[in-house]
Order: sequence, then structure tokens, then C-alpha cells
Amino acid sequence: METLWDHRFAQRMQRMKSSIIRESLKIIEQPGIISFAGGLPAPEVFPLDQVAEASARILRENGPQALQYGATEGYTPLREYIVQHMARYGLTVTVDNVLITSGSQQALDLLGKVFINRGDRILVEAPTYLGALQAWSAYGAEYISVPSDENGMNTDMLEHALRAGPKFIYVLPNFQNPSGTTLALERRECLVQLAERYGVPILEDDPYVELRFEGQDLTGIAVLDSRGRPECTAHYCGNVIYLGTFSKILAPGLRLAWVIAPPDVIRKLVQAKQGADLHTAMFNQMIAYELARTGFLNRHIDLIRRVYRERRDVMLQAMEKNFPRGVHWTHPKGGLFLWVTVPEGMDTGKLLSAAVERQVAFVPGVSFYPDESGINTMRLNFSNATPEKIQEGIARLGQVLHERIA
Amino acid sequence: METLWDHRFAQRMQRMKSSIIRESLKIIEQPGIISFAGGLPAPEVFPLDQVAEASARILRENGPQALQYGATEGYTPLREYIVQHMARYGLTVTVDNVLITSGSQQALDLLGKVFINRGDRILVEAPTYLGALQAWSAYGAEYISVPSDENGMNTDMLEHALRAGPKFIYVLPNFQNPSGTTLALERRECLVQLAERYGVPILEDDPYVELRFEGQDLTGIAVLDSRGRPECTAHYCGNVIYLGTFSKILAPGLRLAWVIAPPDVIRKLVQAKQGADLHTAMFNQMIAYELARTGFLNRHIDLIRRVYRERRDVMLQAMEKNFPRGVHWTHPKGGLFLWVTVPEGMDTGKLLSAAVERQVAFVPGVSFYPDESGINTMRLNFSNATPEKIQEGIARLGQVLHERIA
Repeated sequence: METLWDHRFAQRMQRMKSSIIRESLKIIEQPGIISFAGGLPAPEVFPLDQVAEASARILRENGPQALQYGATEGYTPLREYIVQHMARYGLTVTVDNVLITSGSQQALDLLGKVFINRGDRILVEAPTYLGALQAWSAYGAEYISVPSDENGMNTDMLEHALRAGPKFIYVLPNFQNPSGTTLALERRECLVQLAERYGVPILEDDPYVELRFEGQDLTGIAVLDSRGRPECTAHYCGNVIYLGTFSKILAPGLRLAWVIAPPDVIRKLVQAKQGADLHTAMFNQMIAYELARTGFLNRHIDLIRRVYRERRDVMLQAMEKNFPRGVHWTHPKGGLFLWVTVPEGMDTGKLLSAAVERQVAFVPGVSFYPDESGINTMRLNFSNATPEKIQEGIARLGQVLHERIA
Repeated sequence: METLWDHRFAQRMQRMKSSIIRESLKIIEQPGIISFAGGLPAPEVFPLDQVAEASARILRENGPQALQYGATEGYTPLREYIVQHMARYGLTVTVDNVLITSGSQQALDLLGKVFINRGDRILVEAPTYLGALQAWSAYGAEYISVPSDENGMNTDMLEHALRAGPKFIYVLPNFQNPSGTTLALERRECLVQLAERYGVPILEDDPYVELRFEGQDLTGIAVLDSRGRPECTAHYCGNVIYLGTFSKILAPGLRLAWVIAPPDVIRKLVQAKQGADLHTAMFNQMIAYELARTGFLNRHIDLIRRVYRERRDVMLQAMEKNFPRGVHWTHPKGGLFLWVTVPEGMDTGKLLSAAVERQVAFVPGVSFYPDESGINTMRLNFSNATPEKIQEGIARLGQVLHERIA
């Protein structure tokens, strides 16, 4: 049934694709199916009692503030906590550098609104985070891809891409979504230097940094950038915008994340956020602050790391045992995802249909390339399913692969 | 300190104005000042104990779902509740007509993203809700204003405006923000007929409908529109998009609202919301559902009505007593706001400075006109301050007015 609204959609809607992941999740996430498709945290480790205690305390002690309208910038104590958090991470910022957003997805959307004119090119890793492509396509973004390998974006190919005049560089340095790879330190240094030389700013999207299972933390891109700027003493005023989130260390259902940016940029983002949702839910911000303030959150992250590390190990061992020759995969040192490459010429989209018949699911890698390459790749999530389910699911997927590759 | 981000703002940022209200709230909402400027509910009536009980119960019984990622469309039981709610209100819809949003502000933003091309004209009441102007200006909207009076938008002037070919009509029929006026029934009928005749769809923004203090509910615009469509039996498929919210009947700090639209439009809005924030916080949706399901919410609305009605009465009586001749105001039958007109030639922007010196604040009416007329008008909020503060604040404002008008 057509209505008067039907022929009135804006042109940008034709450029906007529905997320294949979120749409397919609805079909895939059914009882019986073992899904490696989503990017969902392990529900077993959600701190239910602590959230309940924090909720009760907030409503008892600060109830009216929790349920009232709040400032667009975010709940001030939470912003102050983020200042301390970034300092531990090596970055000196002030509250004027911090905006609280309704998840990192909102930060990506607001950055699109504030920076992207139709036809602007954004330099991305290939593969890269699908949600960013989706958010920015609505503003008419085009993409320049730089290939990546087990050490992240291949910076040898970066200079060529920078000559095409991108608006900014988008990079996920730690345990990247979708590939699980981490940008090597020398590549980080190279990235910061080249960006400075070509006058192109960097967006550092870092949702998984705290979920490292082994090895040493690598210096962040914003931190490297700030080292070259002794003049920025009052607040951070470098060329990197940094995104952090509570979704992977506390709970995605609260929709809480943060942006670190120069104060001028924060002001523009605040303006855009006023129009987008006025502010992020106060109650949720206060819950996160309560759990962070008491030190609980940092202890909780240790638990998440242990659980995810075990699941990664189980998945890698099961792949070693069940996957045929000619199939390769990354070995992430943290995060939620790993990346599988099947022999050239195979289409993981078609493989998915066969997998779903065997009650196992993944995301075809093509979704993560702006140019829709990567047809023989797939993303597997290891955080959500239990170790037993991971073993069973990988065995099923192994059978599907063996049938095709034998 | 300039950074590489500074000269890279998108063109649309030049069209986007920061909300004068939200910015000035930061200055105005200081201890000692009696503010009629915000649009804040009375914090005294927030149901703190009930929200605490609901939170505890949800985390105990459905904790993992409350803290996990959820569907973009919203929490299904809450969408089903909205279906029932709309039926009580006279509108037959299905869950396919319902999208949960992060406050009505997000609904306005998503509608801008989905429908507005640069240069599109939107037909609005003058004055109208500032947040809509702010959201849509980012997408390059222009505005056609139709004047309003104590009975809402003057539909005698509507036909002329419709000939200019607006993309859609935006109207707040009940206890409008900012004016407090209600669109008369015969004007609603006229609006629906003219919109149909000119082939222009209507956006009905209805945050205050349940806050009626006296008189009978008037039939809603979507309801009137649906009466002419016996063919829409499966779901609502008319020419009106309807916006409702929990901000004024439960708590704005939870950021929860809903859109009713034809299923085709819902699908496009879902696509836009995926890119904007993935989904609205699950925990918050489950709290609202828990309070609605048990019938508590409906009982609670009675309390809000009684409290706001008393505050409106106190404000009207205080104005009668303290305001000089030549000052006029609306007499809202519900909602949160009333509208004051001072003698022509007076500028309420200048008046505000004098008022703030006397420790009382309001919003100059000019903010609510797309063409920045209404220089001798102001919006007063009566929901937030206690009756004692309202009397004192209106007395102070009366002094300021007497000094200028005498």
C-alpha cells in the first residue's frame, strides 16, 4: 500500500545500505544455530548484580538527576573519569576534550555529519568496520582503501593513498573489527608521520584496546601524535580524534561511548548531538560512572579477558583440527574477532547458505570492503558462544569447508 | 590552537545552529535563578521507587538481554505495548508500524535523514518546536511558516502555503511547544483534507497529549486520517507519521520515544537508525515496558496532570496579579508551556538580560520562528519550578516588565 511518504525519500537513502550483519542476525540468531556472526559480548560475564546495586544506589541518592534531561556533553563526573582513564593510557586531555555518545556508532554518525560533504573520500583499512561505512555513506562519503595484513594497515601503500586527498584516515589499531589484527608499532609511527606530512587528520577507533590477552600494549596513535606537540599543555589539541566505548568492557545494551577530540571539534559534535538525540541517557551514564569510580570496572575487565582468551584459544585449536588445508586465519592477541581466508575463487556468501543448513553462521567478508572485494573471506566472532558451542560450531563449519575444498 | 580538523567541517555545519535554549540553560540553570526557560518535567514526581524496582526485577529475570545488543526496531514487548496504547488512542497499528527511538529528538533527526534533501521546504507552525528546526537545518531544510493563534495553526492560511510544495507538514496538535495552544478539531479536519487534496503528508508530533488538565481529548490527526482509509486493515498505511514519547509521562533521562509510520517508512528509518546508534538502550526500554505493563504508568500520569495543572494555575494567577497591561498570554489546557506576548517594539532578548539580573529566566520567542520573527514573545515553562518558586519568579518578571512598560 503506497502512501504520500513513499516517493519522498531523500536521495541519500539510495546510498544507504541496510547492514547485512544486523539484518542477517535476525535470521541467523535462532535457537539451534551456533552463530559466529554477531559481535556480541559474552552475556555470561555481564555484571548483573553490580549494575543492579549501582542502579539502586543512583536512584536512591541521585534519582531526580538520573531521570531528568542532562547536558549534551555528558555527565560531568563520567567525563572526568574518562580524563583519568585516558591519562592512564598515556594521553593528557581535559573534560573539554570529552563528549559522551550513545555508543561509538553515534560518534561515527556525528563525525560524518560534522565532517563529510558529499563526494569526500575517507581513507580506510581494507577490510574495515562496516558500521563506519554505513554511517558515512549516508553523508555521501566515498572510500580509498589501503590493504592490510597480520600487522594491520600496510603503511607502505599509505603514501600513494594520501596523495588522493582523503578528508581523514580511519583506523582501528587494536584487534581490529573485522580482522582481529593489530597495527604494528612502527606502522603506527609511520602513519602519524605521513598523516602530518600530508596534512590529513586521523580517526582512531579503539573499542577493543583493553581486551588484550597477551603481549604488551602498543602506544596509541593519539598518544604518538601528542608526543610531537609539547605546545598542547592545557588540553589535547592534536590531529587525532579518538573513540572509546563501554560496550565491550561493561555492556553494549547501555549504549555508552566517548569521543576525545580538540575542543573546537567537540563543540561542533555537541551541536550535532543536540539535533540528533539531545543527550545520552543520564541513568546509563551514572551507572557506568558508579561502576568505574569504585574500581569495579577495571577488575571486571580482567574477567572478560580471561573468558575471551579461552574462547579464542578454543576456536583456534578447533580450526587447526577441523579446517582443511588451503584455509588460513588470523591469530588475534585480543578482541572479539578473527578472520578466515578460504581458497581464491570460493564465495563465502554461498558458503554461508550451506553453513546455515548445518546450523552454524558467520559473516561473509565482502561486507567489510567498501569495494566489495574479499569474496573469499569471512569474519568469525569468538566472544559470544561458549567453548563447547565454539568446538561444535567450528566442527560443523569444518565439514562444510571440507565438502567444498576436498 | 588550530588542528588539521579545523578547516574540514562539512558545509552543513554552517547551516546548523546550536540550540539557544540548551546553551543558555547552562548559564541560566544556576542556583538562585528561578528558571522558566527549560522544558524540564517536575523532578519531584519522578517515580524513583518504581524505576528502582523495575530495574532490579529486569536485571534479576532478564539481565543478559537488558545489557546485550538488541534489535534496531526496539524491544518487541515495548513495541507491542505501543500498539495497544495507540489503539486506546483510536489508531489501529501493528508492530510493523512502530520504531522505538532514543527520544523524539532522534525521531526528528532520522526523519530529516530519510526525507529531507537540501532545499526541501517543510511547512511548520509559527512558532514551532525549536528542536525540529535544529535537526532539519542540518539536512538543508527550508521552512514555510503558517501563523497560529489560540486555536493552533491557522488553517485559513494553510492552502496558500501548500501551493508552495512543501515536502511535509509538521504540527504539534496538543499543548504545543512553545505556545501551549491546541489545534481545534475543525482545523484538524481541515488540515487532513487539505493535505490529502494537495498530496502532502503530515508529521504529527504529540509529546504532551496525555497531559490534558481539563476538557475532552480531541481526535488526533493520524486518527482522522485513518478514518478515510478503510483499506488499511493489516496495519496503519495513511499519510501521517506520528511521534510519541516517554519523556513527559515517565522520565526524559531514559531517552525513549516512538514513531508510528507506514511499514515502508519504518524500514527506511530502521536503516537510518542502524547507522545512527544501532539501537536504543535495551535496559531503558525494558524499564519503560515493565512500568507500562503493570498499569503503573497510567496511574502515574494522573499524578503528573494534577501537579502540572496546579503549577499552570499558580502561574496564570501570578501573571494576572503581577504583569502590566499590554502583556498577553495563552491559557494552555495541558502540557508544560505557555506563551507571552509583550507590546510590539519590545525585544524579549533584551528583557532576558534584565530578568537574569533579577534572578528569573525564560526563552525569548524568536528562537521558535524559522524567520526569526516573534521578537516580542517569550516561552514560559510551568512544569519544573515549584508553586512557591513560580509565584516568586513571576513577581520578579512582573517587576522587570513594569519597569519597561510603565
